[in-house]
This record gives sequence, structure tokens and C-alpha cells, in this order.
Amino acid sequence: MTARPARAALVITGDELLRGFVQDAHSGFLAEQLRDQHIDLVDVHIVGDDFAKIEAALRRDAGQEPVELVIVSGGLGPTHDDRTTEAVARATGRALEVRPDALEVVEARIRAFGRRTESELELFAAGNRKQATMPHGALWLDPLGTAPGYVLDGGADGVTYVVLPGPPSELRHAWRGARMTGPLVELGARGGARHERLLRIWGIPESAASRLLDATGHVDGDDRRVTICARDGELELSVRGTDAAGVDALVAQLEAGMPDEVFARDDERPIAQLVGAELVARGWTLATAESCTGGLLGGDLTAGEGASAWYHGGFVTYSYEAKTELLGVETDLLERVGAVSEEVARAMARGARARLGSDVAVAITGVAGPGGGTEEKPVGTVHLAVVSPNGERHRQIRMPGDRATVRRRSCAVALHMVRELLAEG
Amino acid sequence: MTARPARAALVITGDELLRGFVQDAHSGFLAEQLRDQHIDLVDVHIVGDDFAKIEAALRRDAGQEPVELVIVSGGLGPTHDDRTTEAVARATGRALEVRPDALEVVEARIRAFGRRTESELELFAAGNRKQATMPHGALWLDPLGTAPGYVLDGGADGVTYVVLPGPPSELRHAWRGARMTGPLVELGARGGARHERLLRIWGIPESAASRLLDATGHVDGDDRRVTICARDGELELSVRGTDAAGVDALVAQLEAGMPDEVFARDDERPIAQLVGAELVARGWTLATAESCTGGLLGGDLTAGEGASAWYHGGFVTYSYEAKTELLGVETDLLERVGAVSEEVARAMARGARARLGSDVAVAITGVAGPGGGTEEKPVGTVHLAVVSPNGERHRQIRMPGDRATVRRRSCAVALHMVRELLAEG
Repeated sequence: MTARPARAALVITGDELLRGFVQDAHSGFLAEQLRDQHIDLVDVHIVGDDFAKIEAALRRDAGQEPVELVIVSGGLGPTHDDRTTEAVARATGRALEVRPDALEVVEARIRAFGRRTESELELFAAGNRKQATMPHGALWLDPLGTAPGYVLDGGADGVTYVVLPGPPSELRHAWRGARMTGPLVELGARGGARHERLLRIWGIPESAASRLLDATGHVDGDDRRVTICARDGELELSVRGTDAAGVDALVAQLEAGMPDEVFARDDERPIAQLVGAELVARGWTLATAESCTGGLLGGDLTAGEGASAWYHGGFVTYSYEAKTELLGVETDLLERVGAVSEEVARAMARGARARLGSDVAVAITGVAGPGGGTEEKPVGTVHLAVVSPNGERHRQIRMPGDRATVRRRSCAVALHMVRELLAEG
Repeated sequence: MTARPARAALVITGDELLRGFVQDAHSGFLAEQLRDQHIDLVDVHIVGDDFAKIEAALRRDAGQEPVELVIVSGGLGPTHDDRTTEAVARATGRALEVRPDALEVVEARIRAFGRRTESELELFAAGNRKQATMPHGALWLDPLGTAPGYVLDGGADGVTYVVLPGPPSELRHAWRGARMTGPLVELGARGGARHERLLRIWGIPESAASRLLDATGHVDGDDRRVTICARDGELELSVRGTDAAGVDALVAQLEAGMPDEVFARDDERPIAQLVGAELVARGWTLATAESCTGGLLGGDLTAGEGASAWYHGGFVTYSYEAKTELLGVETDLLERVGAVSEEVARAMARGARARLGSDVAVAITGVAGPGGGTEEKPVGTVHLAVVSPNGERHRQIRMPGDRATVRRRSCAVALHMVRELLAEG
């Protein structure tokens, strides 16, 4: 056993990804999962539904970094276009065989689906055998749908293959099975005891964090590595290495340089969940009032389970009338200062708090663009307000970016404003 | 000039993508853009911020399909870790040079940013020259931030490179410049006159559409190709080929097989925008009442500009109390039948319509999971209701998938219910 972490490559198949009908969502999910397993993902390859291209992607070229694990997604369906399994068999030199145990499970799934859409039964049945066919020696995984994924154990010196169905929920389900299997556990253990720390930072740009890091004299190496990444205005600074004390010392040094900006340590929960936990600790509830974000903040707050303990609801007030009727914002005020203003943001938050009887309320109103900007209030101008038993806060921001970016970032700012206000008292 | 479309490869750089901190969003955007330009994207490669790996990805191996266009994203920043330009220079055998015209623009941007965050000025300035350095002959592009992307013209027989900054809004801005440049226009024209048709389908599974396609006797070839892809319950069936009459005939044959299911032709606008256009045509407005989706439907409705013409707002009623206080759903009813029920969905929609004075209202209430399911109402059970001048509709669905899938799919069903009701009268 070496102290070097196992390396993985990911091959994602699907014409729909290359034609722009669907945005890949597998790479981010599996990258995060592999990080948790202490396996280094070295590259991702997205290829079309084409036998030769899939096979070429599976056989890594001499110029590419060697890996101990290849994960393949997609192309496990019942039709003749689904040829991933055949490509895996070719690449690994294994014979294909119908697995009677898998066939039984696939048929049971088909029958279960059949109860719901009887007309599909015949079509599904035709592909049964195909979906239960896999390379010799495969360890197959419980399917959420009708496509069982599988693991091919590479042994100590070989390459392990994990083959997963393409639909996102099926892929995630099958992966949860795969990561529990011996070959994956063994690959995860190869890295030896690696220590990883995570600082989450709010309120400084990435360049400032980089400068702090440079000032420590740190240089990335095999023993210790730092990654800084920005997401919706948050920074995630991760330090990992083989020497736990050294990692901790570097983290302590960095944290000392930004005492007010680090808001979470070794905690990957989305900011909405951190805010929720703080609200629960106080027995408080939160309400939302959204204009330009149209409900996205409510969507963020309810993305995880259990939000009902601290989030009762909110208002989407996209028009003047809705702001007046639902939140009691005065028409005079709207006409005098406009919907995108400090006064209206505060009035929206107060209105939401009063009407839902919540302890805290947060409001967002802005110009998300691409049109609607003026010289005084250009696209990207957003006013946010929070009201709480700790008092009120307002912030005006002006941010670059397209409509989706402005909306996403506005939600992040709103959540951090709530967090900061909660932290004060 | 051949009739074969130009082929492109995409190389996305960034440790944060491989470590699972960020989900790639470039591949879907650029895939769609390339399709619009009649350029075939043949593969996508995601690699870390490592000089050797970027360079290896740029030099395509013998086993990979040759391409006429390589698009590279990321690694154009001011620090020593940003080495994409160096790798491009190496791969193309071109010398690096500081471009005084680009330097001037970068410095102007720095000064503009500097007005906002004075402390950053010095740091940004240090990277100025680096960001204005590019391979000889580069056609540089207006930067949204401080990193100008650029195009390297491959000429008639060579490979054209498009190099774009990594932050999503900067990438999209630079791409809009790149696609207007001569080399890209020329590559787009290589495909000759290609005809593409798109049918969007709702209400049948992908397998049923495949069966219809098989019944036509169609076989994919260079002259005509069909892609079917499922997204949030919608199917997108695209037919493209060199023979326009043949493409149209196949589309007509397919459409005849699903007369009630095709809801849009050659129209890629999101369903929310199609619904909005129908509402505008009638002079109607829409209101929303959301429980398990927490505001995501409002987020969908306002994702595009101009929704204020037909969407005034809505309610997020996550708790019993919010359903009662904001929408007037009776406490007795909630206690008798539960929040996830036909009766409550209808009452929510009626309440939202009355309180916002809208013509149409749609409500969603369900068990998104992963907890909260019961034998009677398992996870994935969602009740939806629409009220309108055309009458009321209710639907109960039970869908597989994780929390995010159930929520996303619920929004799609809600939008299609509104569309169907509008189509009726």
C-alpha cells in the first residue's frame, strides 16, 4: 500500500450532452463523491453515444495520466444504441454474459413499472436480456430503474471499472451501492491517512485569499495542497495533506489572517442549511420577500429536508401591485423611489415579517437584466434588507454578470446577511 | 468546401471542477452554441490546472477524432497558476507576446474595478501584463472582467483555437465575441445547408417516441440524424440532415404519430416562456402557490426577462400556518386530508388567484423526500391544481427520484398543466 491516493477518470456518454440539450450534472456529483472517498479525479471525458468513441475514451492514451479507477456513465439502456457495456467488455477483454440473477431483478422492475404503464410492458421486455448482460465477473448493483450498474474489480494492479446508468437519479442510486463495494473501499484506503480541512470565507475576493496564502510561504506539493475556489461570492479554501499537524497549522495561520471572514470550518452544508441551524438554535423562523429572484431564495431555503422547522414561507412580489397587496408596500413609496431601492427593500422585509409572523425576514429587489437598467440603477443593482429581533440591515450591491448570475448571487448575499445578523446576537 | 460540418473539441480547465466544488456549466452552454453554429462538438475534456495536462488535452491523440476547432476555458487569470495561454502557445508552436492594445484595455478595467475596491488595485496590476500576453497572431476579445479571451485562426487546413476565461459570465461574454469572428463564421459555413427541425413532446415516455421512430424505418446516417432526449419529463426530438425535404417528411410522419403530445415545433424557449406568451396573447396573468417546490416555480417563471407582463407574483407556503394565513386554506381541511392532497392543492390555487387577482393560478404541494413519506403518500407524491377562466384541473403524480428531481419535475408538470389549460380555450 502506497501513500499516494488512487486516481480516477470519468467517462460520461451521451449525444444529448454534446448537442447542448442537457447540461452534464454527473461530473460535479462524482467529483465531490470521489473527494470524500480520498480518490483523486484526474480528468473527465464527455463523448457521444458511439461505440468507437466510448471504447477510445476507456482505453487511456499514453499521454494521459494512468488511473486505477474508471467510472463510466450512460448507455446502459435497452436499445441497440446503448453500447457502453459492449465497449467496457472490449476494453477489458472480458466476455459478455447474461446474468440470470440480474435478469430476474430487471424483470421484476419491468413488471412493477408495467402496472403503471401497461402499454410499455412489451417494449421494456424486449430489452430485458440486454440490460442484464454484463462483462464476466461483474458485481452488479441494485437498479433504481431497469438498468443495473456494475463494478469490475481490477485487483491490486489492474484498473477497476464502475459502470453507472445515465439518468441522474439512477446514477446517484447506483453510485451509492458502488462506493460500498470492496474494490472502491480498497481504492479509497490507498491514500493512507490524509487530513483535509475546509475554510469557508465570505466578504473578500479570491485574490485577497491567494495573497494571504502566498504570505504563508506555502507551495503546493505531494504532501500538502491548497485549493481556493469561488462560488456565488463564497470562497472555499481546502487544505489537504499527509501531515495532519502541518495542515492544521497552515489552516490556523490562514484563519488568523481573516478572522471576520471565515464563517464555517469543515462544514460543507449549503449556507441555507447553516442559516437554518442558527435559526433552530434560537427557535426563530424566517420569511422571504422576493422580487427579481422570483422565488429562488425560497428554493434555496427548501433545497434540503427539514426547512419547515424554521421556514414557513414567503412572497414572490414581482409587480408593484403584488408588493402593495401582499406586503403592504405603499404605492406612494414605490412611485417616489422605485421598486429597486433601500426603502422598498426594507418595506418588503417588514411586510413579510408582519404577515407571516416570523422572527426574521429577508427581502430582495433588483435589476437582474439584461434590460431594465438605468444610469442611476444599472443592471446588477440589487437592494437587500433583513429585519430581525437584532435589528435591521440593508445592503445595496452592484454586480457584474448575466441575469442568472445576478439572481444567484443575490440569493447568496441575502443568506449571508441573515447569517451575519444572527451571529450578532 | 465540403458538406461535412466542422468538428469541435472542448477543453475545460479547473481543479475546482475535478474536486467537486463546482459543477461544470460551460459544456452545456457551448454545446448548444456550437449546435446553433452548425458545428459538431465531438468531445469534452475536463482537466486540472496543470500545464502538462492542459497541453496534452490540446494535442489530440491519434485515437481521437480530428477536429477543426478547439475551445479552451479557464486559466487566464493573473497568477502563476494560470497557464492556459502558455499551453496554447506550446501546442500551436507560436511565440508569446504582450499585446499593448490589450494591455491598455486590461489596465482600464483594473482602474474601473479599482474605484470599487481600492485595496485590490496593486494586486490586479501585477497580473496586467500576464493577462495581456497571448500567442502571436491572436485576435483578442472584449473582456467582461480583466481576462481577454482570444481566437487563433487555423486557416483552411489548420485547427482554430478559441480561448475563453473561466468565470461563467466572462466566458459567455467572450464567446459572443468569438462566434462573430471570421474563423468561426467560416467553420459554421462548412456544414453547407443543413436543415434542422425540433419537436418538443409532453406526455409519453422516451421509449414510446423511440418506437415511433423505429416504425418509420429511419436509420441514422450522415445525411439524416435523429436525437431524442428527455429533460424534466419533456422530450426533445431533433431531426437534422442535408436533405430538407427528407427531414421535413420524417418530422411530419413522427408528428402524425403523436398529434396530442407535440406542444412546440422549432422553438427552444423554455416552457415557462411559452406559457408566458400564451398568457400575454390572452391578456391574462398567472399566480403561483408553492409548498414542496419552495419558490422554484416562481424562479422558473422569472428566469427570462419580461415575465412582469404576465406574472405578478406568488406565495411560498411551506407550513400549514402559511397555507392558512396567506392562502386561506382552512385549518380543518388541512387536518382532515393533509397538506398533500387534491383538496389542499385546489384550495391553494384558488387562494392565490383570489389574493393576487390573477386570471390563472397554479399550486404545487407534495412529498419531495427523502423523508416524510407514508404508505398512502410515498415520497414523490405531488398534487397540482390549476384554476383559470377555462375551469379547474387537478393532477396527482408519483414520481421516482431524489428530492431535487421531484421538485424540478413538479415545476415542469405545473407549467404543462397551465399550457394545456390555456390550449383548451
